Parts: sequence; C-alpha cells; structure tokens
Amino acid sequence: MDNKLVVYNSLSRKKEEFKPINPPFVGLYVCGPTVYGDAHLGHARPAITFDLLFRYLKHQDYKVRYVRNITDVGHLENDADEGEDKIGKKARLEQLEPMEVVQHYTDRYHREMDKLNVQKPSIEPRASGHIIEQIELTKKIIENGFAYESNGSVYFDVEKYNKKYKYGILSGRVLEDLLSNTRELDGQSEKRNSLDFALWKKASPEHIMRWPSPWSDGFPGWHAECSAMGHKYLGDEFDIHGGGMDLLFPHHECEIAQNTASIGENSVKYWIHNNMITINGQKMGKSLGNFITIEDLFNGSNEVLEKAYSPMTIRFFILQAHYRSTLDFSNEALQAAEKGLARLLKGVETLNKLNVSDKGNYNATALKDKCYTDMNDDLNSPIVVAHLFDALKTINSIESGKENIDKSNLEILKETFNTFLFDILGIKNEESEGGNDEMLKDVVDMVLNLRLQAKSNKDYATSDFIRDELTKLGITVKDKKDGFDWEI
Amino acid sequence: MDNKLVVYNSLSRKKEEFKPINPPFVGLYVCGPTVYGDAHLGHARPAITFDLLFRYLKHQDYKVRYVRNITDVGHLENDADEGEDKIGKKARLEQLEPMEVVQHYTDRYHREMDKLNVQKPSIEPRASGHIIEQIELTKKIIENGFAYESNGSVYFDVEKYNKKYKYGILSGRVLEDLLSNTRELDGQSEKRNSLDFALWKKASPEHIMRWPSPWSDGFPGWHAECSAMGHKYLGDEFDIHGGGMDLLFPHHECEIAQNTASIGENSVKYWIHNNMITINGQKMGKSLGNFITIEDLFNGSNEVLEKAYSPMTIRFFILQAHYRSTLDFSNEALQAAEKGLARLLKGVETLNKLNVSDKGNYNATALKDKCYTDMNDDLNSPIVVAHLFDALKTINSIESGKENIDKSNLEILKETFNTFLFDILGIKNEESEGGNDEMLKDVVDMVLNLRLQAKSNKDYATSDFIRDELTKLGITVKDKKDGFDWEI
Repeated sequence: MDNKLVVYNSLSRKKEEFKPINPPFVGLYVCGPTVYGDAHLGHARPAITFDLLFRYLKHQDYKVRYVRNITDVGHLENDADEGEDKIGKKARLEQLEPMEVVQHYTDRYHREMDKLNVQKPSIEPRASGHIIEQIELTKKIIENGFAYESNGSVYFDVEKYNKKYKYGILSGRVLEDLLSNTRELDGQSEKRNSLDFALWKKASPEHIMRWPSPWSDGFPGWHAECSAMGHKYLGDEFDIHGGGMDLLFPHHECEIAQNTASIGENSVKYWIHNNMITINGQKMGKSLGNFITIEDLFNGSNEVLEKAYSPMTIRFFILQAHYRSTLDFSNEALQAAEKGLARLLKGVETLNKLNVSDKGNYNATALKDKCYTDMNDDLNSPIVVAHLFDALKTINSIESGKENIDKSNLEILKETFNTFLFDILGIKNEESEGGNDEMLKDVVDMVLNLRLQAKSNKDYATSDFIRDELTKLGITVKDKKDGFDWEI
Repeated sequence: MDNKLVVYNSLSRKKEEFKPINPPFVGLYVCGPTVYGDAHLGHARPAITFDLLFRYLKHQDYKVRYVRNITDVGHLENDADEGEDKIGKKARLEQLEPMEVVQHYTDRYHREMDKLNVQKPSIEPRASGHIIEQIELTKKIIENGFAYESNGSVYFDVEKYNKKYKYGILSGRVLEDLLSNTRELDGQSEKRNSLDFALWKKASPEHIMRWPSPWSDGFPGWHAECSAMGHKYLGDEFDIHGGGMDLLFPHHECEIAQNTASIGENSVKYWIHNNMITINGQKMGKSLGNFITIEDLFNGSNEVLEKAYSPMTIRFFILQAHYRSTLDFSNEALQAAEKGLARLLKGVETLNKLNVSDKGNYNATALKDKCYTDMNDDLNSPIVVAHLFDALKTINSIESGKENIDKSNLEILKETFNTFLFDILGIKNEESEGGNDEMLKDVVDMVLNLRLQAKSNKDYATSDFIRDELTKLGITVKDKKDGFDWEI
C-alpha cells in the first residue's frame, strides 16, 4: 500500500508527492471571501475542498497552521485597479459604515461555514487589519526596484520584473502575448504599462476606507493582502496556497510576483486550485443572475430550487466530485446526493448493530487501504465515497445473514466509516442533532409496540389508525416478520 | 406613563434622561474581552447587560451602531505598563503564533455569546487591526503636548494634562491623592511620573507582536485601542461607552484623558458600568481560583457546580439582578433562576392557549405600562421580571376560569410577554430548539388521543400502559376534564 500523499501542483502542472518544508508542521494559506454579500455555492466549494485537505493533513498527524483571510478592503469592482471598492459601494448603497457591512457578511459567512461543518481556520486575518504589513511589503518592492510611485499610488512594474524573473509562471501566460491582447494606455493612465497592478492606491476625496502611507492617504491593492498576511503568519516560505481556479490569474500570479520581488523567491511550494461550479451547464455568476446563495439552498428560497437541501447534502454533493473537476449544479444531482447520503448514514446505523461471527469472510482492511490510497491520490474523495457505497452492500449482506464478519474485521469496518465518512469527509448526522430526538425515537417505538399488540388482538382499526396517523406526521412504518421498522 | 429612558451616568454620578446626540442614531461602544483564555461569568455579565441595552434601544426605534472590540494586543499582565503581553505569554506557553491564540479564544467567545443569545455587535474591531489608528492618536497627543517619547516608548503626561484638564473626572480620584499613594520612581524608569501611562511601547527583542512606528518597533498601550477604535467608528463625540466597573479606573479614566488630549473633549456623553459578580460572597478572579468559565456552567464541569446550567438559566439569573448591583453566584441562586424561568415559560404556553371571554376583568395595559416604566428606569430588569411573574398568577386564574380576559387584553398580554421576555430580555425557549420537537409533540398528542379512546372503551389496561410508558420516558401526563396535558 502506497501511503504517500500526492497533490496536483498548479505551478508544475503535475502531481507531486507532498513533502512539507518543515515536518510535522504544515503552513496552509487559502483565499477567503470578499465580504460584501452572502456566501454562495462558489464560496462553499473552496471552503469544503480545503477543509478536506485540512482534515486529512491533521489526520496524518501534521501540525497544520491554516490561514484563511477575510478580504474587507481593496477589492475593487471587476477585480480592477480603478473603480469603486466592493465593500465601500455596498456601504454607500445601504448607508452603513463599511465595517458594518464587513461584520454583517463575515458573521453570516461563519454561520454558513459552521452549518457546512467546515472547521475554523487557525487564523482568520482581515486585510484591513494588516495595512502596515501591506505598506511594508510595498516599500520593500520599491526598494528592490520592482515598483514605482505615480501620483500618490504605487504600481508593480511587471515588465521590469519579467526581465529578471518570469511573470506568468503559474498561469503559463507569456508577457508578450498578454501585452498584445491588452488595449494600449491612453496617456492619461498613472501606469507605465497596462499590465502593471496597484500595490497602493491614493484615495479619492469621497473614499471612506483610507489610511496614511508614505505615498498618500489611500488603501492597499487587492493582491497585496495575501502576500502580506501569508508572509506574516506562515513565513518567507510555506507549504500550500489554495484557492478557486478563478483566482489563479491574475490574483495568484501577482502574489507570486510580489513575493519574488520582495524576498527573491515565490514563497509557496504547492499551489492548489479547486475547479468551478456551473449551474445546469452554465457558468455561475452574479452578473449572469443564476447565482444561488448557500442560505437559499438551505431553505429552498430560490426559483431555481425545487426544494430545500440540507447542509450535509450540499457538502456531500461537493465531495462527490473531484475538486479539480467542474461540478454542475442541478436539482437532480442534489437530490441524488441527498439519497446517496441517506443510504450511507442508514448503512452506518446497520453497521453499528451487526452481529459478529466466529469466522467471517469479509476483509475490511482491503477497504481501509483502498480509501487511503485514493485520498492520497490528490484527495480523490469521489472514489473514497464509491468505496464506502461498495461496503454498504456487504453490510446489508451481513445483516441479512448472507455473509459473515468476525470481530476484528467489524472493528476495522466501523473505524473506516468513522474515519473517512465523519472525520475526513466531515459528514455529520443531521438527524441526530435535535435535542429530544432520543425521546421521539422511544415514543414512536412505544406506539408501534402498541400497534403490534392491537394487531395480535385483531384490533385492525387501531393498528391502521396508528399507521395512518404516523404517516401523516411524515413517519413511514415498515412491517417486518418479527416486528417493525420506521423512518422519518 | 413616563416613557423616557433614564440611565445612570458614571460621569455625573446620577441618573440622566437619555438624549442621543444625533437621533435616531445611537453610538454605543463596549469594551470586549482580552482573548487569552475562556470566557467566564465575569464576561457574561457585561455582554448580557449591554445586549439588554442594545435590544431596548433598537426596540425604541433607535438606529444603533454597537461597537464591541476584541483586545488582542497590548494588554499586559496585571494591567500594567511593564511585563509580558497576556496573549504573547499564552502563545509562548502553548507554542503557538499569538494570532492562533487570539483566533481560538475569539471563536470560543463567539460560541458562548451565541448560546447566551447575545446579539452580535454591528462592528467587532480588533486592537491589532488598528495599529495605524493608535499611532495616529499617539502622534496627535504628542503634537498637543500631552505625551512624550522616552527610549522609543511614548507616555501620556498625566501631570501636565491635569494642569489644563482634570484627570480623575470619571473615577472621582484626585491626582494628588493618587500620587501620594504611589511608590516613587526609582530613577530607572522611562516615565516622568509614576501615573503616566504608555501610549506606545518599544518591543524587547523577544517580543513577537510588533509593528513599525515613528518611535520604535513596538506595540500600542492598552488604553489606546478603545479611544482609537471608538473614534474611528463612532466619531469625535458619541452617546454611550459601557464596560464592567473594574474597567472604570484606570482604563476608562485614561480613555477620557486620551480623547480630551487629542480632540479637546471627553467624547462620550454617557458612561455606563455594570457591577461585578461574586462567588459565594467572594470576589471572583483567576488568581483567587474561584473562577467559573461559561463552558463549565453549561456542562457542570467545575467542582463548585452542583449541576449543569443551561445558557438561558445563566442569562435569566444575570437579568434578575439590576446591572448596577453586585450579583452573587451560588448554586441555590442559579437553581432558583432555573425554576423561575421554567415557570415563566410554562406560563407563556398556558397564555397561548387561553380562551377569551366577551367581557374580561383583566387590564393588560397596566402591566405593559409598568414594564416600560421600569425598563426606562435605568434598565430595571429585575422589576420587569417581577411584573411578569405577577401576570402569571392572572394567567393561571384565567385558565382555571376564576378570572376572565377579553380579546384585546389577551392580545396585549401576549404582546407584552413577547416584547419583554423574548425581544428585550432576550430569553429563548431552549426546549423548542431541537430539530424534531414539533414531531415529538405531535406523536405524543396522538398517543394520548389513543389513550382517551381506550379509556372511553373502558380499556384501562391500554390507557394505563400508555401513561406508565410515557412516565418512564420522562413525560408526565395530566388528566383534565376535557382532555389531557403533558410535559417533559
């Protein structure tokens, strides 16, 4: 069994064995949300993808420092260098202080992440809380000759950088091609070159979010925050930087340029990107109007949705695709995920009630090994899920007496489900969360025993009454040879 | 009915009518926790006190911007100007990055506050995220002549300030008395005067949390953060500053001095302080070892505790004392609060089932007016609770047919309970929170209807069986003239 974790590194464009720089420590940085609106499906995917990685690394006994930032300043409309700050705009429209907008959507983001069972990062720094660090980064890049001041703003000099290092190593883009595809500067621009990007922007008089700096009262450029905070909390060099594929260019490309221009190296060993979510085959986006918030999904309040989907259905749906594949949202797919998850959880219940035999014919170690092998293969969660589904068949065969399992294999089987389904995939049983659920179970069992009694007394009126009333309440009763079974 | 809110202003030492500076807007700043350990009873009280105020102001249609900070830097051991940073020390002991400690305890604090049904503030700024603002404040105070640099640190010059303004207006302390009670400086100190306090501290080489400044690489003094963040988010002048009584001196006194030295006025119109919690008559403190965390209370895991207490029990216990009285913790007092709250909630259930008469003799408006009058009297929550208990008697009399209530008074009565118990006191019914509780209720009702049927068929074996089985499960059945009632 090959127990070495391999991840796809966007930088080398191939799968590489994961070897931390300073084991057992792992530094992991992931780009978090820009908090000017409710979290949507496109936020759920990176959060769950890197939660899977975070959980798996910890399961492998690494000491992980997981930094996921909150972007609350400097992210301008259309990800551009000109225009209104996304949060400033929302604050203007809602007549709030920008930090009220930030707090509101950050709190809501946290609430959704908790429901999705996404573990909290070790550090969740805010861009606005690290202005000094971004100013220091900018100073360093100017000092090293790769940035220039222009009218109170500071720009990264992409062409000059490209002469010494190579701009485009992450995205594979070539500067000359990029330049030929960009409109020429109109002579009015503060930039020397259209590809140059802002490290610091001078604030216009009406701009609220502003801080003093050596160049102007202003605010940091969007790309600066991740370089500054990654460096502050994870050091000059760290293991993994993650984020959505949409951030690869220009955001992450610019981060590499900033890191290299300030400290002489790209800082990050493995760049990992999750693919995008489409909706019925189309790209999802605010501008396209096919945008589904996580809250909509949870309560079914979006006309695209046929019904509400529970947080664990969403989580399971996302993990049933490999993180590097596009994932198409549809009601059918979500309902399939819902059913599949219910089957798995039902299987765990059965598993926990199985009887052991002195001699069994089932080998649970093979299952466990396969799960590790596929998780190690670039976090292949859909295959791990498939292995668990395979094991369900065995569980049912053992329950019905067609197969046997011995004590030690039963323990391994239980441990494998606990480890993979609950600890690593991060599924939790939502049904067992309510406060009085144990009591509900007992009361329903009691009623159904009453019904058995009524039947044995040939009091079919009562027995039918009980079944019909329970059905009305959403409880399905199944008669069995020697008793009953029921589910909500 | 006098419907004007009156609050006790620590600054004037009397009750004053609350008149916002710029109605309908209200600016409210409250000192939040220093996040180097788990929240304890001493954190629950200010959080709940100012949550009560926040809820009541919103209920009165004020637009409240509530700022409650997180202290994550600059708070040194023993609240002193020398010694280790509380968070830095914890980080050193646990071999973590200081911001990991901050994140961990901030997340836990949020979790406890959510359980206590404390509403989130509008903005929750972190001290470490506002270093620039604290540097700018320090510059301004130096510029105005009330602070001096000494060996890379900057101190507030209390004696000089006292000559122009008065140091001690909040605490009523007199500078000369303070000076005579302080040991003299040993000639080694950087300070000119022992009462001077740090605005900026130069960091020793081993100090991790440090930022560049015009004076040294260092960190802000503890008192600077609240002045800087209050000013940033609420303006030069704002309505209310709250906190625990233990912060009145020196923390809030120094804040007033900083505000006045930088902008010429004390900034805050109403200073409001909650009193302390004692344990069995003794002051509670980490050093005294009689320290109870909120989590301990929730799960009963502290030898002082006879049992676990639910979040709403804690909340109700705190609100049953006036915020300016000391509140003595004891198991007896908490158990009394638990029982009292259960009675109130049971009363609300009865209330929701009451029948109306054409003509009633109960006047609910009088109750409602009394509740407003006492909330308006410096948030007299214990008296409001007493009024609700009084109303319980009436509710029970109406239920048993001894008194009558007409439709409009019943509506006012329900509205009064909803407004005061749930919206303003912020109590929630913990029993109704579980996911399947509605279903449990329906199933038990169904079983008890079956039992009624059995009884009418004189099938006493079945009717007794049902009652006994439910009793075993912890459900008490009460027979009534025309039906049944039950409770868990």
